[in-house]
Amino acid sequence: MTAAIASPSRSRGLRAMLAGARLAPLLDSSALLASMLRFEAALARAQADCGIVPREAADTIGAVCSRLLGDPAELASVFDPAALATEARRAGTLAIPFVRRLTDAVAATDTQAARFVHLGSTSQDVVDTATVIQARAAARELDAMLVALGDALAALADRHRGTVMTGRTLLQPALPVSFGWKAASWLDQLARARRLLARTVDEQAVLQFGGAAGTLASLGDCAPQLARALAEGLALPAPATSWHGARDRLARIGAELAMVCGAAARIGRDVSLLMQPEVGEAFEPSAAGRGGSSAMPHKRNPVGSMLALEAAFRAPALAGTLLAELVSEHERGLGTWQNSAFVLADLFEAAGSAVEAMTEVVAGLRVEPEAMRTNLARTGGFVFAEAVAMKLSESLGRQAAAALVERICHRALDTGHPLRQALAEDPETREALSSAELDALFDPATGLTGATAMLDAVLADWRAARDGE
Amino acid sequence: MTAAIASPSRSRGLRAMLAGARLAPLLDSSALLASMLRFEAALARAQADCGIVPREAADTIGAVCSRLLGDPAELASVFDPAALATEARRAGTLAIPFVRRLTDAVAATDTQAARFVHLGSTSQDVVDTATVIQARAAARELDAMLVALGDALAALADRHRGTVMTGRTLLQPALPVSFGWKAASWLDQLARARRLLARTVDEQAVLQFGGAAGTLASLGDCAPQLARALAEGLALPAPATSWHGARDRLARIGAELAMVCGAAARIGRDVSLLMQPEVGEAFEPSAAGRGGSSAMPHKRNPVGSMLALEAAFRAPALAGTLLAELVSEHERGLGTWQNSAFVLADLFEAAGSAVEAMTEVVAGLRVEPEAMRTNLARTGGFVFAEAVAMKLSESLGRQAAAALVERICHRALDTGHPLRQALAEDPETREALSSAELDALFDPATGLTGATAMLDAVLADWRAARDGE
Amino acid sequence: MTAAIASPSRSRGLRAMLAGARLAPLLDSSALLASMLRFEAALARAQADCGIVPREAADTIGAVCSRLLGDPAELASVFDPAALATEARRAGTLAIPFVRRLTDAVAATDTQAARFVHLGSTSQDVVDTATVIQARAAARELDAMLVALGDALAALADRHRGTVMTGRTLLQPALPVSFGWKAASWLDQLARARRLLARTVDEQAVLQFGGAAGTLASLGDCAPQLARALAEGLALPAPATSWHGARDRLARIGAELAMVCGAAARIGRDVSLLMQPEVGEAFEPSAAGRGGSSAMPHKRNPVGSMLALEAAFRAPALAGTLLAELVSEHERGLGTWQNSAFVLADLFEAAGSAVEAMTEVVAGLRVEPEAMRTNLARTGGFVFAEAVAMKLSESLGRQAAAALVERICHRALDTGHPLRQALAEDPETREALSSAELDALFDPATGLTGATAMLDAVLADWRAARDGE
Amino acid sequence: MTAAIASPSRSRGLRAMLAGARLAPLLDSSALLASMLRFEAALARAQADCGIVPREAADTIGAVCSRLLGDPAELASVFDPAALATEARRAGTLAIPFVRRLTDAVAATDTQAARFVHLGSTSQDVVDTATVIQARAAARELDAMLVALGDALAALADRHRGTVMTGRTLLQPALPVSFGWKAASWLDQLARARRLLARTVDEQAVLQFGGAAGTLASLGDCAPQLARALAEGLALPAPATSWHGARDRLARIGAELAMVCGAAARIGRDVSLLMQPEVGEAFEPSAAGRGGSSAMPHKRNPVGSMLALEAAFRAPALAGTLLAELVSEHERGLGTWQNSAFVLADLFEAAGSAVEAMTEVVAGLRVEPEAMRTNLARTGGFVFAEAVAMKLSESLGRQAAAALVERICHRALDTGHPLRQALAEDPETREALSSAELDALFDPATGLTGATAMLDAVLADWRAARDGE
Repeated sequence: MTAAIASPSRSRGLRAMLAGARLAPLLDSSALLASMLRFEAALARAQADCGIVPREAADTIGAVCSRLLGDPAELASVFDPAALATEARRAGTLAIPFVRRLTDAVAATDTQAARFVHLGSTSQDVVDTATVIQARAAARELDAMLVALGDALAALADRHRGTVMTGRTLLQPALPVSFGWKAASWLDQLARARRLLARTVDEQAVLQFGGAAGTLASLGDCAPQLARALAEGLALPAPATSWHGARDRLARIGAELAMVCGAAARIGRDVSLLMQPEVGEAFEPSAAGRGGSSAMPHKRNPVGSMLALEAAFRAPALAGTLLAELVSEHERGLGTWQNSAFVLADLFEAAGSAVEAMTEVVAGLRVEPEAMRTNLARTGGFVFAEAVAMKLSESLGRQAAAALVERICHRALDTGHPLRQALAEDPETREALSSAELDALFDPATGLTGATAMLDAVLADWRAARDGE
Repeated sequence: MTAAIASPSRSRGLRAMLAGARLAPLLDSSALLASMLRFEAALARAQADCGIVPREAADTIGAVCSRLLGDPAELASVFDPAALATEARRAGTLAIPFVRRLTDAVAATDTQAARFVHLGSTSQDVVDTATVIQARAAARELDAMLVALGDALAALADRHRGTVMTGRTLLQPALPVSFGWKAASWLDQLARARRLLARTVDEQAVLQFGGAAGTLASLGDCAPQLARALAEGLALPAPATSWHGARDRLARIGAELAMVCGAAARIGRDVSLLMQPEVGEAFEPSAAGRGGSSAMPHKRNPVGSMLALEAAFRAPALAGTLLAELVSEHERGLGTWQNSAFVLADLFEAAGSAVEAMTEVVAGLRVEPEAMRTNLARTGGFVFAEAVAMKLSESLGRQAAAALVERICHRALDTGHPLRQALAEDPETREALSSAELDALFDPATGLTGATAMLDAVLADWRAARDGE
Repeated sequence: MTAAIASPSRSRGLRAMLAGARLAPLLDSSALLASMLRFEAALARAQADCGIVPREAADTIGAVCSRLLGDPAELASVFDPAALATEARRAGTLAIPFVRRLTDAVAATDTQAARFVHLGSTSQDVVDTATVIQARAAARELDAMLVALGDALAALADRHRGTVMTGRTLLQPALPVSFGWKAASWLDQLARARRLLARTVDEQAVLQFGGAAGTLASLGDCAPQLARALAEGLALPAPATSWHGARDRLARIGAELAMVCGAAARIGRDVSLLMQPEVGEAFEPSAAGRGGSSAMPHKRNPVGSMLALEAAFRAPALAGTLLAELVSEHERGLGTWQNSAFVLADLFEAAGSAVEAMTEVVAGLRVEPEAMRTNLARTGGFVFAEAVAMKLSESLGRQAAAALVERICHRALDTGHPLRQALAEDPETREALSSAELDALFDPATGLTGATAMLDAVLADWRAARDGE
Repeated sequence: MTAAIASPSRSRGLRAMLAGARLAPLLDSSALLASMLRFEAALARAQADCGIVPREAADTIGAVCSRLLGDPAELASVFDPAALATEARRAGTLAIPFVRRLTDAVAATDTQAARFVHLGSTSQDVVDTATVIQARAAARELDAMLVALGDALAALADRHRGTVMTGRTLLQPALPVSFGWKAASWLDQLARARRLLARTVDEQAVLQFGGAAGTLASLGDCAPQLARALAEGLALPAPATSWHGARDRLARIGAELAMVCGAAARIGRDVSLLMQPEVGEAFEPSAAGRGGSSAMPHKRNPVGSMLALEAAFRAPALAGTLLAELVSEHERGLGTWQNSAFVLADLFEAAGSAVEAMTEVVAGLRVEPEAMRTNLARTGGFVFAEAVAMKLSESLGRQAAAALVERICHRALDTGHPLRQALAEDPETREALSSAELDALFDPATGLTGATAMLDAVLADWRAARDGE
């Protein structure tokens, strides 16, 4: 449960404090390099299938890649990130020093096989496809995390379908709602974020394979067949055309990740508001070392919500960067794709941080139904004003009823009386509504029919999505 | 053809110069008010169907709305935008002064009917649903515009499948490509933008109906039935729950509109680069009054491309605003939805401007195949270097072949000889490649197999999408 | 007082609900056109001074411009915004149709004088300089509005220097602070925003005058002299060089406007939190028609704060657009400046809306010192924990003292006792602190020395800035 | 010279390819921790000066901090970033685990001294002030880098004051300009970015010291004196009040860093356009391993420009994040400051990357005056049309002259004749202009008076700024 705020990845330094533990290993330098190796191995294999590369050469390339993939220490030594980065900066692309090192590593086994490394491909093919592979892996893990958060929300919604509380609009009391319905509202948005992220990744995270200019020119007639074989080898969809100049695919994934951050942060915003001691309706779980203060020993801070909110401050801008990079020049843009892998990783990291943090919060949320009832009672019954006006409108019409109720509300506010009493004292109201009718109107449970129907519909959707898996 | 850069809407003042003519009337104040009227009429009708409102009252409300919808002058007089805006600013929502005026207008016909205007609904219901109605109308028109642009691109792609030109990566010559393939690349991205905008609007532009706090509390047991009836009456999907606190639906539409801007602007970037006189490979159409300069009588500026680029500078930020507003408080956020209708309208306007401008550009594009060939020839044959290296790698391996070709390239650059000649003079190459083989490698058409296959796949996708309609 | 939420400009339609009343007239189409006329008149006059244009011609041009400036009806008829926008869209710039109409208007008086309209200038000269003139006028008005808001904050700070309340960090109670200090914190940021906006506009809103390519090529040797004369005529600073390709000047103004929005919205965030009924420490002023609900007659919504927050959601993105447009091509960018005047106007509008709204809120703020004291008391004394720990650290050291206080805090929380009591019952504490010392530590006023010193320093800065004017 | 694209920092993994080498060590985890240590040492020292902490304790704390600062290995072992990040994530702030470790380290030397570590301070004090210290160090280094780039631009401007080339507006030829003037235009913007970044850091990067809620409550009467002493000890300005809730200070630094990115990227955009082989007017320097292609041996890519453009795609969004975080709650915001140090570091990193890359480009730029002349000649003389029109307007008036020149331009375009010839053949022109006058008008150097005056003014400003140091 508390793993959420634990053990982030080493490769980000102190920045890991704003990243979750589960996605980080899928997003760091080694993960990107591993995806690049997978691309090169699959390329050689597909080229062997198409007869462009000798089978033994492809096997050797594949074996070397497998060995490196299986041995993090050798991987880190062959592809030292700092050295690679230095050369990549000079070359303008990570692929050039990467391919050089891989070729050398293959040559150490078999100089003949080394001839066929990266054949007919180009820098952006390997970098973009590796980004796509990385995105799929991260999205898969994030999906599992979203399921956990969604399940926690569904449980909360179900458990609290009858827990009455103040509904608040524009930060002011509006009407009674149920906490279950509130949780279902969070779930509805989160479920949408989950479903659409998954669909977007499925549709947009596809093979990029185009060669030097995107036309697979050097591969001649076997180009289409090879592209299909490579896609199959990597278990990636094969698009109609190479897309290295069309950055919308990755930008769409980025936008959906910002949606995930927003869905999580909206919950965090509400929890942190409910946790204000003057409100006191729900609390983040507490644990040793969690949410303290260096100066105030008594503090219990909403740190999970804070992490989600922090992520949601960064995500729109990161998604906006990918949108700005859509305007790419000719067959390969200048500055419009070189940061894609990193910006997308930042977005995954932010989403992972927010979802991890909020899963811990929601799963351990301490709900205070008593405080909810008390706060509702303290509203002086004004939250039932709409129901009264609605009932009165049957006889008076909406506008006249609204005017009457507004008048009585102000009288109640002026005298400090609860609305129930002020209504009972008003002759016009007494004529229109019996005491029993008034009682029914002031029962918080009366108005929850619609809320409960919505709650059930949201839960049904969630379960259907879960069952369909 | 030149309508694109003509007659924008009056209501935007000089800003209309950055808006297209076709979408503007669907996005202005009257259009929003008309959508609000449609909501109120449908609400009364659905409530009559559910027995909450007398049929005659609903009919009267509907009749008054219809009359206003049919009479722009009366509409503008009853709902004077400036006066409405002033009151809306005080009230914090447009709905309050709007409903007051509508109630008065209905009361002028029938005071009994006026009692039932806006019954059980809340401000955000009418504003959000009106935004959704407006978005659907604008999206429908934009879709037709995207079809026109897509058809123009498809025609260009088909016509120029054999038109050879320089493929350019990082603004440097890479390999020969066909202009048809280039156009197909533009089309592929645009078709995706079209399809996903349509799907997003279909899925996300749904009825918002929740009443005061989102639970339809005042409607009692008939809430779900009424919500369905209202959705049906407005021909909108009915969601599982009210979504006024979940701003992701509109944010998704906004993100897809930024994708449309980006897809159009990418074409504009390329056209403006091709139109540089030193390149001279394609030109925007010319017409009286189009793209001149106040100081330079000879200028013909790429103004269509400019408009698309301008839109793409604004769109990511606007989409980012909607993403930032996901963090909404409780049952109705403070500042997180009040600008949604306007920000979304700005995004539609930007997309409409970009698509209109680029449709005129693409439909009237003057392509210069001769200049394309000349520029390709002027590259000294270096654009064929990859093909030569690929061929040589069959005998020498990729790395050795690359090294050899690089050496010869540098020699050719040093001596100023074309690559073909430098290769012919190199003994190692002569041994590996016959003169006929070299000739084939230097034929630009040789490497287009892959490009043509991609082009055909993109065209097939486009036609399938068009036929499926 | 209530003017803030009143009478916005007609030219923005319903959008005016999110714009203030005071800046709007300085930002609309007529204001831009008026600034363009001022440029053309000053240009002719400066050219007459330099002997390039006959004095009579300059006088005539000036007279026609003056007449148009003085007659809004004629201005609107000669320069109909919708027609201008249509032509501007085709031409790619507003200047071309504008200059054509002005030339015609001058020719109607004197065909000889008409020869000299806009001589040696270019589109961007008049559009950028008009933007600068408009920005200066709007900034001047906004400065006056910021002074009013600052004065209201200063009064609040001074009045409430002794009003003790709960300081809240991460939305949890931290320590007692004074409401005056809180208001001074708001003021400090706002004063900085005011000062730096003014300085930025002073330094960056300078004449743009470069002619066709920015070099004033057609003006020969008199170019520098003319540029100086023109700057003087427009009361604008003359920069070292034309800056039409350097968009940083306007971007800096935009960034400072986002700072203004943020400074105002931060106050709005706090006010809306204090106004939650469970907190109830401060309230926006109420007035007829202000902050009601279409469904809930009793509601009093924080609409002023809402308007400020809404503006602050839009501003960062708009400022980001101007930052993105820094990457401009060669001697005049493609899409990077055409929207500057409108984006900057949007930013001024957002800032004006936020400042107007918050000035009304702050000037009419109902502060509830009693509720502040009550909420502080309800914290159970834990807000004094840091003071106790600090005192104890004198004898025990920081870490041991913190550990002890933390232990006692948890005991108090477990038993439900106030911290004062729990401390009194703890032997270790009793040994270290006398009862009188404890009493002093639990006096909220004790810890305000630092706060009051800061408050006074902020007020002194504000007064110094006000006096220096 | 080629150091720019070399040896980035190890701590960023592959991301270092998008960071420069010079700033990276000032921005990584160790640099942040070092700044935090400096804060704690200075705090103890200032507290000893004020008599709050025993002198020996402060000396010990200072000695331990110094030892850690001097021993990177011990620093990394005591403050292991990954472990710190894990705990910081749980605690919600980096300061808590940091202070715990530091206290332990001091206690290992002297348990008495350990009592006084971090006394009276709070998490955000140390984190924000460390961010400020880090920003000052990075800004100082960046300033030196900007001086190098500015000097290179100044040299270029001076050297090429007479190098005539085509001025291009909207990517079309406009008028002749000098390459020196173009370089001066770049310099003017860059010098402004340099000056205003330095001023902003000077003014805004000030001490943050407020204690638990910002009021220095626990420090009693000595609070103001201590704050001054601490500021002095850290060589930081002391603000009127604590500013932890006012995020505008850091946001302003962020905005100026985006200005630096934009100024550098604008040069990169122009260089990459000039380097198109069809234009061929300027080239990035070439060197082994620089700007190659994995597929195309002949390629020389504009990788320096690419790096600058890449940075400028990220910077506006990062600056926008800081602007969005201005809306901070009460006395310490939730999610609005926790990422400040990292977002600001990202901005410094982007700026450093862009400036390093462009310094290498500008210092080694290969300018081709011959190609500039040739391209200018190939414009057919149309770039002199404005000068001709301007001259003719002396006798015909601006509008008639413009119309005549436009007519002749079109005739020339239709016949394919150069403009000079078409003018000579036109009777009306012949009457108005002698052949010698025409010759003078077609001399590119004729129109450079204004350009050269601007160039000299920019150079004078630059030198004055340099001399004033």
